[in-house]
Amino acid sequence: MAKASKNLKAADKTAKPARTQPQPALRAIKGDKVASPAAKPGKRAALKPVPLKAAAPAADDAPIIALNLPAAKLSPAMAAYFKKCQDRLGFVPNVLLAYAFDMTKLETFVAMYNDLMLGESGLSKLEREMIAVAVSSQNRCYYCLTAHGAAVRQYSGNPLLGEHMVMNYRVARISKRQRAMLDFAVKLTASPWSVEEGDRERLRRAGFSERDIWDISAVAGFFNMSNRIASATDMRPNTVYHGQAR
Amino acid sequence: MAKASKNLKAADKTAKPARTQPQPALRAIKGDKVASPAAKPGKRAALKPVPLKAAAPAADDAPIIALNLPAAKLSPAMAAYFKKCQDRLGFVPNVLLAYAFDMTKLETFVAMYNDLMLGESGLSKLEREMIAVAVSSQNRCYYCLTAHGAAVRQYSGNPLLGEHMVMNYRVARISKRQRAMLDFAVKLTASPWSVEEGDRERLRRAGFSERDIWDISAVAGFFNMSNRIASATDMRPNTVYHGQAR
Amino acid sequence: MAKASKNLKAADKTAKPARTQPQPALRAIKGDKVASPAAKPGKRAALKPVPLKAAAPAADDAPIIALNLPAAKLSPAMAAYFKKCQDRLGFVPNVLLAYAFDMTKLETFVAMYNDLMLGESGLSKLEREMIAVAVSSQNRCYYCLTAHGAAVRQYSGNPLLGEHMVMNYRVARISKRQRAMLDFAVKLTASPWSVEEGDRERLRRAGFSERDIWDISAVAGFFNMSNRIASATDMRPNTVYHGQAR
Amino acid sequence: MAKASKNLKAADKTAKPARTQPQPALRAIKGDKVASPAAKPGKRAALKPVPLKAAAPAADDAPIIALNLPAAKLSPAMAAYFKKCQDRLGFVPNVLLAYAFDMTKLETFVAMYNDLMLGESGLSKLEREMIAVAVSSQNRCYYCLTAHGAAVRQYSGNPLLGEHMVMNYRVARISKRQRAMLDFAVKLTASPWSVEEGDRERLRRAGFSERDIWDISAVAGFFNMSNRIASATDMRPNTVYHGQAR
Amino acid sequence: MAKASKNLKAADKTAKPARTQPQPALRAIKGDKVASPAAKPGKRAALKPVPLKAAAPAADDAPIIALNLPAAKLSPAMAAYFKKCQDRLGFVPNVLLAYAFDMTKLETFVAMYNDLMLGESGLSKLEREMIAVAVSSQNRCYYCLTAHGAAVRQYSGNPLLGEHMVMNYRVARISKRQRAMLDFAVKLTASPWSVEEGDRERLRRAGFSERDIWDISAVAGFFNMSNRIASATDMRPNTVYHGQAR
Amino acid sequence: MAKASKNLKAADKTAKPARTQPQPALRAIKGDKVASPAAKPGKRAALKPVPLKAAAPAADDAPIIALNLPAAKLSPAMAAYFKKCQDRLGFVPNVLLAYAFDMTKLETFVAMYNDLMLGESGLSKLEREMIAVAVSSQNRCYYCLTAHGAAVRQYSGNPLLGEHMVMNYRVARISKRQRAMLDFAVKLTASPWSVEEGDRERLRRAGFSERDIWDISAVAGFFNMSNRIASATDMRPNTVYHGQAR
Repeated sequence: MAKASKNLKAADKTAKPARTQPQPALRAIKGDKVASPAAKPGKRAALKPVPLKAAAPAADDAPIIALNLPAAKLSPAMAAYFKKCQDRLGFVPNVLLAYAFDMTKLETFVAMYNDLMLGESGLSKLEREMIAVAVSSQNRCYYCLTAHGAAVRQYSGNPLLGEHMVMNYRVARISKRQRAMLDFAVKLTASPWSVEEGDRERLRRAGFSERDIWDISAVAGFFNMSNRIASATDMRPNTVYHGQAR
Repeated sequence: MAKASKNLKAADKTAKPARTQPQPALRAIKGDKVASPAAKPGKRAALKPVPLKAAAPAADDAPIIALNLPAAKLSPAMAAYFKKCQDRLGFVPNVLLAYAFDMTKLETFVAMYNDLMLGESGLSKLEREMIAVAVSSQNRCYYCLTAHGAAVRQYSGNPLLGEHMVMNYRVARISKRQRAMLDFAVKLTASPWSVEEGDRERLRRAGFSERDIWDISAVAGFFNMSNRIASATDMRPNTVYHGQAR
Repeated sequence: MAKASKNLKAADKTAKPARTQPQPALRAIKGDKVASPAAKPGKRAALKPVPLKAAAPAADDAPIIALNLPAAKLSPAMAAYFKKCQDRLGFVPNVLLAYAFDMTKLETFVAMYNDLMLGESGLSKLEREMIAVAVSSQNRCYYCLTAHGAAVRQYSGNPLLGEHMVMNYRVARISKRQRAMLDFAVKLTASPWSVEEGDRERLRRAGFSERDIWDISAVAGFFNMSNRIASATDMRPNTVYHGQAR
Repeated sequence: MAKASKNLKAADKTAKPARTQPQPALRAIKGDKVASPAAKPGKRAALKPVPLKAAAPAADDAPIIALNLPAAKLSPAMAAYFKKCQDRLGFVPNVLLAYAFDMTKLETFVAMYNDLMLGESGLSKLEREMIAVAVSSQNRCYYCLTAHGAAVRQYSGNPLLGEHMVMNYRVARISKRQRAMLDFAVKLTASPWSVEEGDRERLRRAGFSERDIWDISAVAGFFNMSNRIASATDMRPNTVYHGQAR
Repeated sequence: MAKASKNLKAADKTAKPARTQPQPALRAIKGDKVASPAAKPGKRAALKPVPLKAAAPAADDAPIIALNLPAAKLSPAMAAYFKKCQDRLGFVPNVLLAYAFDMTKLETFVAMYNDLMLGESGLSKLEREMIAVAVSSQNRCYYCLTAHGAAVRQYSGNPLLGEHMVMNYRVARISKRQRAMLDFAVKLTASPWSVEEGDRERLRRAGFSERDIWDISAVAGFFNMSNRIASATDMRPNTVYHGQAR
Repeated sequence: MAKASKNLKAADKTAKPARTQPQPALRAIKGDKVASPAAKPGKRAALKPVPLKAAAPAADDAPIIALNLPAAKLSPAMAAYFKKCQDRLGFVPNVLLAYAFDMTKLETFVAMYNDLMLGESGLSKLEREMIAVAVSSQNRCYYCLTAHGAAVRQYSGNPLLGEHMVMNYRVARISKRQRAMLDFAVKLTASPWSVEEGDRERLRRAGFSERDIWDISAVAGFFNMSNRIASATDMRPNTVYHGQAR
C-alpha cells in the first residue's frame, strides 16, 4: 500500500553493535573529520559511497519511508559519513537513508543535528537525548522514540530511564534541574503559545544559563520538526535499536 | 523583566523597504553567491560585518529575544549574507540576529531555511509560505505569523490571503490542491501521531508527487521547530513586516 | 457553492475612511440619535434607506454570508443607522448587512452591541475591543479578528497592539491590569466551566470593580456568540478593514 | 467569600408553578404586551416594580450571582415583565434578576432572548431549547442546564429527553433532522473555526432552510454567550426548576 | 438499528420505589447475605431466578444495551441477589441485567462494586457516589450519571447536590475536603498521566489518609471503567432513577 | 517524599524468568486451582504466605506505590496464588503486592483480571494484551505499558509489536480486524461519550461478534481503571519486565 523507494535499504542486519562499548548511533561520530559534512564540501571527491544494499531489510524497516524517493548519489562527504556510521555503529541510521534522496537536504539535516546533539552545550548529551525522547513521546513518534530511547539507555547506562522518557517522563526519578528542563520542553511541545517569561525564569532558577535555555528550546524544536517529518513519511527505525542497551 | 542581549539591535528603522518592488525578507537572496553560506566557508575573510547598531530599536523588536546572548563575530559568509539582506530588504530579519550568537547555529539554520523555502520544489514559494503561516497560526507564533504573513501578502499580491493564513486558513478561497496541502500541514502540526497513509493518499489524489509530499512535510516540520524556538525565546519580528504589502 | 443573498452588497469600495481622524466602525456612532435604534421605534417614518448597492463588491466580501437570506426593508431606525455608518465610516459594516434580513434581529443585535461596546463602563472602549479580539483569536473567527483588530489599531494608535491581539495576546506588552482582563476573558472562552471565585478575585486584585467584572464577562460572552454566528455563516468582513490604521 | 448583592433576592419559594399547565419560564410570556420591553419604552410609567424580596431565598440561589451589583430601579417595561413572570410562572427567573442592575442591559437581553427563543422560526420552541441545553452541556453551564433542561422536559412532556440533552445529547433517540441540528450546534460550540460549507450542506440535506441554519447558529451562539456570563458570575438557577416536569 | 437482547427486559415499571425511605439501588443490599455473591458460591442452589420479564419495558431502557447478548441462567447467588434488589429497590438495576449474559462477569462486577461502594472506607457512601458522578460527568456517561446522580440525591437528601455533580461539580458548595477529593478524581479522569506526588499531598493536607487516597483512586478508576463499558454498549438506565429523590 | 509501605517488597530480583519458555506474568496461571481465588474461598486455610521479603528491591520498584499501606496477611487463596506466580514467573507482579493491603480488594481484582484477560473469549490473549497496551499508551501509564508491553512481546514473539503498542499503535502492521479493534478501544478511552452505533457497526463489519464487542469494551474499560489506579499511586512495575522477550 505505502509506496517506498527500492533504493533505500536498511543495512543493520549486518551490524555488530558494540554493546559492551555503547556507541549511540548518530552520536559518537561528532568530532570526526566527517562529522559536519555540510561545512566541509571541499573534501567531496575522496570517498566511495557505502554499499547500502548488502543486507536483507528487516521486517519493520523496509521500506524505510512510505514515499517513493529514489536515493541520490551520495556526495563524498555524505559517503564518508555513512561509512563512519557503518564502521562505528554497524549500521546507517534510517533517517539518513530517508534524507538521502537529496544531498543538500541530507547535509543540512546532518549539520544541524550534529551541532545540536553533539556540539558544545551546557546540557549533557544525555540531557539532550532525554529532551528528544520526552518531546517525541508527547508527539507519539515511533521513529524518534525508538532511536533516541536507545540513546538514553546507552548514555545513561540505565535502561529504565529510557523507558521512563518513552512512556511518561514524569515517573523518572531525576534531578529537579532535569525535571524543569523536561517540563519546559514538553510544555513548549504541547502549547508553544503559552510559554512565557515565567517559564524561562523557572529554568534560570533551576540553574540553567541563557544559552542553556536556548539549547533546551532548540533541541525541543528540532524534535518537533523531526517527529513530524517521521510521522508524515511513516519513517521506520532500524530494528537494531530495539535491543540496544536493555 | 525579560533579559535581553544589548548586542542584538534591530536595524529596520533605517530600512527603506522597496515596496514598489516587493522583496520578501529571507526570500530573494537565494541564488546569490552568499545564499547558502554554510556551504561556502572558503569565502570567510572578504566581508566586513554589517553595522547592526546604527538604528534606534523600535518598540516591539528591542530586545529581539528574551535571552541575553551576546552576538558573536559574524563569519565572513554570514557578514556577506547580512549585508545582502540589508541591501536588498533594507533590514536584517530578526531571526538571523537571534541566531547570531553562534555562527554554526546561524549557518545551519540559514542553510536549511534557504534550501526548504527557496530551493527547487514542486511547491511554489508562495505555497511554502502559506504552509509556514498556517502552521504558525496553529501554534500561535507571533514572530512567524508576522514575518511569513508578510511574505504571503508579497508573493501573492493579495493582502487578504495573508490575513486568511494568519487567522484561519479554512476561510481562504484557494484551489482544492492548496487546501489539501494546508489540511495535511495543519493536521501534521496538531496531531502528528494521527497522520497515516490515507492522508498521503489524499495529497497524491490532489496532484502532489512523492517529493512534493516530502516538501510539504518538511516545511510544516521546519515551522513547528521555528515556532517553538521563537515562542521559547519571545522572539520579536522586525516592525517593518507589519506594514508590508497591505 | 455557498449560496448568498444578492440583496446584500458591500458598499465599502466607495468608502473614504477618515484615516487622519480614526472613526472605528460601529464605534463612533453611539450617542447619536440613531445609536440605539431598538429603543426608538417611534422615529421609524423619517429616513430613507441607504442605497446599499452603489458599489461593486470586493472579492472577499461578496457574498457577505454563505446563507441565502434576502434583505428585508430597513426599518426607519435602521435606515438612519446605516446612513450614519455610511456618512461617518464610509461603509456599512457587513455584520449589519448580514443581520438585515430581519429587522428585529438587526435591532436587538445593534442595541446589545452598542450598549456593550460603546456604553458606559469602567473598561475603556479600547479595552473592550482588546477583549473582542483576544476572544476571537481563541475562536479563530475571521470576521471579528478583521473588524475588531482594525478597531484595536485605531483606538490605540498602535498597529502592533492589534496584531498582538490577533496572533497571541500573551506577547503584548500591556499593563498587569489588562493582562489579567485578557487572561480571564480567554479562560472564559476556552473552558468556561473552570472559571471560579479565584478567577474573579484575581480581577479584583488587579483593580477591577464588580461591575467591571460583569463587563469583561459580557464582552467576552458577546464575542463568543458573534464568533460562532460569523463562523456558522462564513461571514466576510468589509475589505476596507484590512488596511485601516496600519 | 463570593460577594453578592443584597438587593437581588430569589422569589421562587412563593412560586406555585402551574405544573398541570406547563408554563416554561421565560417562554410563555412572549406575545404579551410586555414581551419585548426594549422595543416599547413608551410605556415606562405605568407599572410598579414587583416586590422581589417577599420570599426567603433558597440555599442554592442566594446570592444569585457572585458579583455585588445593586439592583437598579426597574423600568416600567421591565417591572411589567417581571410581574408577568411572577403571575404566570410563579417566579422571576434569576437571570433576569442578575441583569437587573442595569435596565439597558436587562432590556437588550430580554429583547434578544425573546426574539430568538420565542419568535417566529422554522425551529420549534422545543428544538431551540434542545440546542440551548446541548450547547450548555458542552460548556458545563449549571444555570442554563438547569433552567433550559426544565424547559425541554416541559415542552416535550418527556423528562428523559431533558436528561439526555443535559448528559450527552448523543444518547437521545431523536429524528435525523434533530440530530443533525444538535451536531451542528455542538460542533459550532466546541470548534467554531472548523465549521464550513460541508456542515451547512448537512443541515440543508436534513431539511433545514437557509433561515433555519441562521436560527440554529444564532441560538447556539446565544447560549455560548449566556453560558459564559453565567459561569463568569457563578449564576444560580431558581431552585424551582429542579423539580419541574420530572 | 441497535441490536439488543430480547432476553434482557427492564422490570422497573412494576417498581414501587420506597421514596419515603430512600433505598439507593445497588446500595442498601450490602451486609445482606447475598451482598457479595462471588464470595459465597456455596449457596448457589437455593433460589429461583427473578422473573425479569413481567413488566413492559419503558421507552428508554429497552433494550438495555445495544449488543445482542442472550441472558444466561442466573447462578443461585445472583438469583438471590437480583431478588433482593427487586424486593428492596423495586427493580433490578439495568447494569446487572447487562452483565447477566455471563455469570462470572456478573459476579466479579458485583463483588468489586459492592466492596468499593459499600465496603468499609474512610469515605462515606455519599462521598463515593459523589466521585462516581463527577467522574461520569467528565466522561459524559448517561447510564452512570442517571443511576449515581439518583444515589447522590438519596444519600444526601439534597437534590441540588446530585445536579451539581452531574452538571459541574465545581458549583457545589461542599467542604474543602470534598472539593479536594473531587478535584483529584476528575484530574485522574481527564489526564491520569499528570497525577503526581503533589496531588497526593493535597489530599493528605485535606485530611485524607493513605487508605482514603487509595479509595478515591479506586472509585474514580472503577467509574472510568464502567463509564466506558456503558458508553461502548449504549447502556440505558432504569427509568425509575430519573424521578428518585427529586 | 513519597511514603510507601515497608511491608511491600519486590521479589523479582530472585526471579529466574523462564525466558526460553515465555510465561507472561499474570497470564499462565489461569486454569490452575488458585486462578480465581475470590470464587474459591473454601480453600483458605491450606497454604502459607509467600515470603515476599527475601529479595532486595530494585531501584525502580521500591517502594511499589507511593502510599503507605501495610500489607495484610494473605488469605490462603491469595497465598497460593502468589506462590504460583513465584514458581512459574519467578516473581509476584507488583500490582498484586500493591493490592495486598486488603484481601477483598486483591481477590476481586484478581478474579476480574483473570476472567477478562485469561478467560474464554473470541479475542486471543494477545489481542487482549494489545488492547491493554494501546489503552495504556493513550493514558501514558508507566506500570501497564511496562507489564503488558512485555506480555505483547511474549505472546506474539514479536518484540516490535510490543513497541508499536507502547509508542503509537497506528504504526503496527496488523490485520484490519485488529486495527478496528484498537481504534475502537482507543476512541473509547479518549472520548467515551462519542462512541455510538456506527462504531459498533465497524467492529461487526470487521468480523467481531456481539460478545467480542463486549470483550473489547470490557478490556479497554478495565485498563482505563487500572491505568488510573497505577497513576494515582505511582505504581512501579517489576524491573524484570523491561528485559523480557526483547
